[in-house]
Amino acid sequence: MLEALLYPEAIAVIGASKSPGKVGFAVLDNLIKAGYQGKIIPVNPTTDEILGLPCYKDVREAGVRIDHSIIVVPGKAVMAALEASVAAGAKAVTVITAGFKEVGHDGAVLERQLADFCRSHGVRMLGPNCLGLINTENHMNASFAVQMPKPGSISVMSQSGALCTAILDWSEGRGVGLAKLLSIGNKADLCETDLLECLSEDPQTRVVAAYLESIAEGPEFIRIAEAASAKKPVVILKAGTTAAGGKAASSHTGSLAGADIAYGAAFKRAGIVRADDFESLFDYATAFATQPLPKGNRVCVITNAGGPGIMAADAVENLGMRLEPLTPAVADSIRSQLAPAASVLNPVDVLGDAPPEKYAMALREVLEDDKVDAVVVILTPQAMSDPPATAEAIIAATRNNPVKPVLVCFMGGSIVMTARRKLVDAGVPDYTSPERAVAALKAMVDYAAWRNRPPRIVTRFPVNRHRVERVLARQARSGRKEMGEVEAKEILRAYDFSVLPGGLARTADEAVAMAERSGYPVAMKIVSPDILHKSDMGGVKLNLSKASEVQDAFDLMMLRIGRAAPHADLRGVYVEKMCKPGREVILGMHRDPQFGPMLMFGLGGIFVEVMKDVSFYLAPLTEGEAMQMLKNTRSYALLRGARGQAGVDLDAIAGALQRISQLVTDFPQIEEMDINPFIVGEVGTRPVVADARMILSETE
Amino acid sequence: MLEALLYPEAIAVIGASKSPGKVGFAVLDNLIKAGYQGKIIPVNPTTDEILGLPCYKDVREAGVRIDHSIIVVPGKAVMAALEASVAAGAKAVTVITAGFKEVGHDGAVLERQLADFCRSHGVRMLGPNCLGLINTENHMNASFAVQMPKPGSISVMSQSGALCTAILDWSEGRGVGLAKLLSIGNKADLCETDLLECLSEDPQTRVVAAYLESIAEGPEFIRIAEAASAKKPVVILKAGTTAAGGKAASSHTGSLAGADIAYGAAFKRAGIVRADDFESLFDYATAFATQPLPKGNRVCVITNAGGPGIMAADAVENLGMRLEPLTPAVADSIRSQLAPAASVLNPVDVLGDAPPEKYAMALREVLEDDKVDAVVVILTPQAMSDPPATAEAIIAATRNNPVKPVLVCFMGGSIVMTARRKLVDAGVPDYTSPERAVAALKAMVDYAAWRNRPPRIVTRFPVNRHRVERVLARQARSGRKEMGEVEAKEILRAYDFSVLPGGLARTADEAVAMAERSGYPVAMKIVSPDILHKSDMGGVKLNLSKASEVQDAFDLMMLRIGRAAPHADLRGVYVEKMCKPGREVILGMHRDPQFGPMLMFGLGGIFVEVMKDVSFYLAPLTEGEAMQMLKNTRSYALLRGARGQAGVDLDAIAGALQRISQLVTDFPQIEEMDINPFIVGEVGTRPVVADARMILSETE
Repeated sequence: MLEALLYPEAIAVIGASKSPGKVGFAVLDNLIKAGYQGKIIPVNPTTDEILGLPCYKDVREAGVRIDHSIIVVPGKAVMAALEASVAAGAKAVTVITAGFKEVGHDGAVLERQLADFCRSHGVRMLGPNCLGLINTENHMNASFAVQMPKPGSISVMSQSGALCTAILDWSEGRGVGLAKLLSIGNKADLCETDLLECLSEDPQTRVVAAYLESIAEGPEFIRIAEAASAKKPVVILKAGTTAAGGKAASSHTGSLAGADIAYGAAFKRAGIVRADDFESLFDYATAFATQPLPKGNRVCVITNAGGPGIMAADAVENLGMRLEPLTPAVADSIRSQLAPAASVLNPVDVLGDAPPEKYAMALREVLEDDKVDAVVVILTPQAMSDPPATAEAIIAATRNNPVKPVLVCFMGGSIVMTARRKLVDAGVPDYTSPERAVAALKAMVDYAAWRNRPPRIVTRFPVNRHRVERVLARQARSGRKEMGEVEAKEILRAYDFSVLPGGLARTADEAVAMAERSGYPVAMKIVSPDILHKSDMGGVKLNLSKASEVQDAFDLMMLRIGRAAPHADLRGVYVEKMCKPGREVILGMHRDPQFGPMLMFGLGGIFVEVMKDVSFYLAPLTEGEAMQMLKNTRSYALLRGARGQAGVDLDAIAGALQRISQLVTDFPQIEEMDINPFIVGEVGTRPVVADARMILSETE
Repeated sequence: MLEALLYPEAIAVIGASKSPGKVGFAVLDNLIKAGYQGKIIPVNPTTDEILGLPCYKDVREAGVRIDHSIIVVPGKAVMAALEASVAAGAKAVTVITAGFKEVGHDGAVLERQLADFCRSHGVRMLGPNCLGLINTENHMNASFAVQMPKPGSISVMSQSGALCTAILDWSEGRGVGLAKLLSIGNKADLCETDLLECLSEDPQTRVVAAYLESIAEGPEFIRIAEAASAKKPVVILKAGTTAAGGKAASSHTGSLAGADIAYGAAFKRAGIVRADDFESLFDYATAFATQPLPKGNRVCVITNAGGPGIMAADAVENLGMRLEPLTPAVADSIRSQLAPAASVLNPVDVLGDAPPEKYAMALREVLEDDKVDAVVVILTPQAMSDPPATAEAIIAATRNNPVKPVLVCFMGGSIVMTARRKLVDAGVPDYTSPERAVAALKAMVDYAAWRNRPPRIVTRFPVNRHRVERVLARQARSGRKEMGEVEAKEILRAYDFSVLPGGLARTADEAVAMAERSGYPVAMKIVSPDILHKSDMGGVKLNLSKASEVQDAFDLMMLRIGRAAPHADLRGVYVEKMCKPGREVILGMHRDPQFGPMLMFGLGGIFVEVMKDVSFYLAPLTEGEAMQMLKNTRSYALLRGARGQAGVDLDAIAGALQRISQLVTDFPQIEEMDINPFIVGEVGTRPVVADARMILSETE
């Protein structure tokens, strides 16, 4: 895929320039200097030679079938350059020129024309408004960046061209190689999803590191990213996390689900490693690019100084990994080879005067220990230390055991510089602080766990879809988006939820009859599409235990609410049997505009409203994921049973979440929903929907 | 203070060596090479010259009055060297030799002897088991570290000698100067508190950066650190935060208060800037060392690229600072000087091709804007960028306005290196990522807020101390540490807490009489020093509303608990009027072994037990701090009133916390206490202690 983009045999630079300082010069110069071996065709009507290459007035005049055309002409001339490129055979174009969607309406129109042309001609376009692209494998620097990275196994895609320049400079400064670098630009045609798919299939790429500000096609991105993550790690820094904004939502679930939560849920589903800042992005990428994945989370720290060892230990514990004692035989063996003051607990302290051999010995021993999944090696440059030789010894020791990750931290700046470069060159990732090394390891542990997750099997429950269709059709005819308790419960019943016996009463006598049928005590709730917060209006009465109370409640409710909200359409009162007391939880769904249905779980009342103690997951949901949603709340201990109180039926909640997942997957017109409260009892009991609301999309 | 340690006129090196590779050689060599101008007296019985200096068999033979003696002889010879030093006039000694407390009992005994000798002779000792010390002001490198930093305004003290070497290497690599560097070692005499006091008075030191694993004298440290922080920022990385452990605690408060929480509370009191990892320690220190404190938290970001600007904006928002629009006139002025595509919202995007002048212009403008408290300037190395000239332009612009902090992030590695060095040399702190620059700014904002805090005035409430003394004396005679509800309430009453009418009944008839007197309904609770969890034993009955119920409850409780716990000393049943319903909160105190009484506040029940939603503060407490404790819980919204529910009397809770603070300050023998629940009503009502427990220290 994208062969013409990344591996062209002939490349045109339309808008090539003779003037150093111009982008059209820089691109051509970079292509030549980086050593690209294909044909390079500069195009510029005002000259017939640039940088020693024959230059053409029009790409079609070159007499060569080109694969890829780099366009750097002014905005208005881009379409013509594109047409000429396609006529000359181009299957891919990179439009570096800016001044399109990002500057306003006219630019957006022009940009759409470019994209339409490409689509109708089967040509793929990178940009416009981008830095270009680099492929180190074929020495192609088709960008106006001043630096060409050395070959490596990290591929980068970035929605910020400027960030690409910072990444290239970092790569040069740190000596880390790259495979491909793609500046995404305005993504009029090729977007992060296409490029991710392409990089996931690129044998040169071991890890994808991406900077993104937005994601174009949520569900498709998740599908591709999940497939990519199954092959290689995808590390993403998603910026713009706090400016969320998001549309106003009227359900609890909607108001708690920000855009950043949706990204989090999508990334979790897709196995994406999320970087929280710029340094983490490459801290993680360099670890993934060079080291094998850990089999577990047991970390061994080797250090020549106590303090940094403690820092690493703190970080291991804070990040939820384990620092366990070594196997006694291994500990004994290491002890016998070190001075008596050395420590062979974990951290292993080889002491301040440790020569390279001691480091190598300790590292070899712990790499063989079955109780160690990963190793962090720390050096402080003490008087007797030999950092470069120690680096070499570490490199040699890791070569013997390439199945466990080894991350290194040579602390300092000046003295350790040569050693750090040696490590990086040999593919042993080196970090400037123990904490950063441990954080990179944590990213590996999490990704490895995702790779080893059980297969995702989404259960399909037997349900009554037709009944839901009928209710939704009726609602659609009413023209109302908000769906009240009566209809919402009817839908939920069709998806095998328990609701209490009861029904809508239009008169006081009907209410009494309803109460007699369902059995006392009963609850009564006003039914009106115009009243959303029933209890605030005095529209809820609980625990009514005889006919006269029901009669009084009906009449008073209709009278008083009728007075307070004279224009409300009061359809009657919902009478239902009071449910047995139990734990109140809230189940909800919010359809994220990017990523689709996100399910929410939380304990009811203050837990949701004040503590915001909820968890989200993207539908469709497996049984394991549903259970994980429960575990991801802080209040999970209460559900499981705490302080002598019996726990509730966790499986019943997990089942309900899965059935909601099925419901909202089956019916995309359900935009938001809350089941609040969902009342759950002890193990073996059937939970009950005590109240529910749904909101339908406008378009359906 | 510590003049002899840091500014000696004559310094002896006892154990100086002729052999390169020996510590005794390194120290002497360092002293000479660094350019120390005082007298240097090498002492070694086996030679009469080292490195061109006359060497003496005994320091007393040198015929010079020395101020400071560096001791590097083997462990057993240290005492003799110390005695000789003192005889030769030394007022300070630095014992580099290791093998003392850290290796076991014998070493600890020897170390204590050294300390005792120093104390009885009025001599101060640094170490043993340390790297030595460095003072760049007088060019004194009295350590065996291989590097001598350039002069600067950051002083470092470190409990890890090895970390000192990493810090020195970082300092050299980054070009950051240091004032003093002190390796604390085993702190047999001089500890972090002494050194902090000394550095706080050192005019060369603008900021203290410390690495600590433990703190010796908690309350004294807080006192000195608070005084030091009032003069200059003190940034501390406290390692070993997770290995907490701590002693087993039987109260809620105790079980929630780990050692790390105590450090957090102590640091907060003392205004210490806490660094969470090694890089933050120096990220913060370099900002403080060079930049003025911000007056507020409104940050302006200037960038030549959108992506990194968003990263900075995310970080500003995540850390609770503000990114506000510029004053319109300033925005207009900047806009008029930039290309149309530039953005003058905040972040200000000067565009990718911005020359140095545009950076300088934008920076000058925003520094003059009243709506900006601090500026973060970001550069990505784009094709047209000139990083070194931009660095110079930024440096010049900041010189014009030295009252607002400017932190810079030149992203990349290789191209930006010269520019970054220029910035650091000119005292403009430069960070490798936008997030790190913003985090450093946040540390400055927090410290500035602490500096501007209102004066700490601790209210003394009129209380009945004598009554508490009597209860405590009675309890002391009983030999029991645990104090039950009856006594605890008696103490609290003396400190102006409301408890409900009621009392201890020894017979069923007494219980009825008590109930009649206090008024129904009543609660009844078993009273026994052997039963701590009353309700688990069936020892609590609530809402008893007539005499027969009280009688039955008394007899059944005594019978059943007597059977279940035959050896328990059942003293009767506490009968008290049921209190009006209200919000249940928990107030507690746990005496931290390091830092003394820590007060706790949280909402009762699950909020404490499951959500661990509590806040801690060190006693004594001001009114503002008490109120802050409430605000620091997530459930504060519930107290203030949420979802139509009325709030509770916050002042009453704050007052109660202050009275507990006074109580536990007055009576240090109270080791732990819980008031759980403390029942709080609406504004204007008096909260009630529904139950309380105290635990006394063993020694009292």
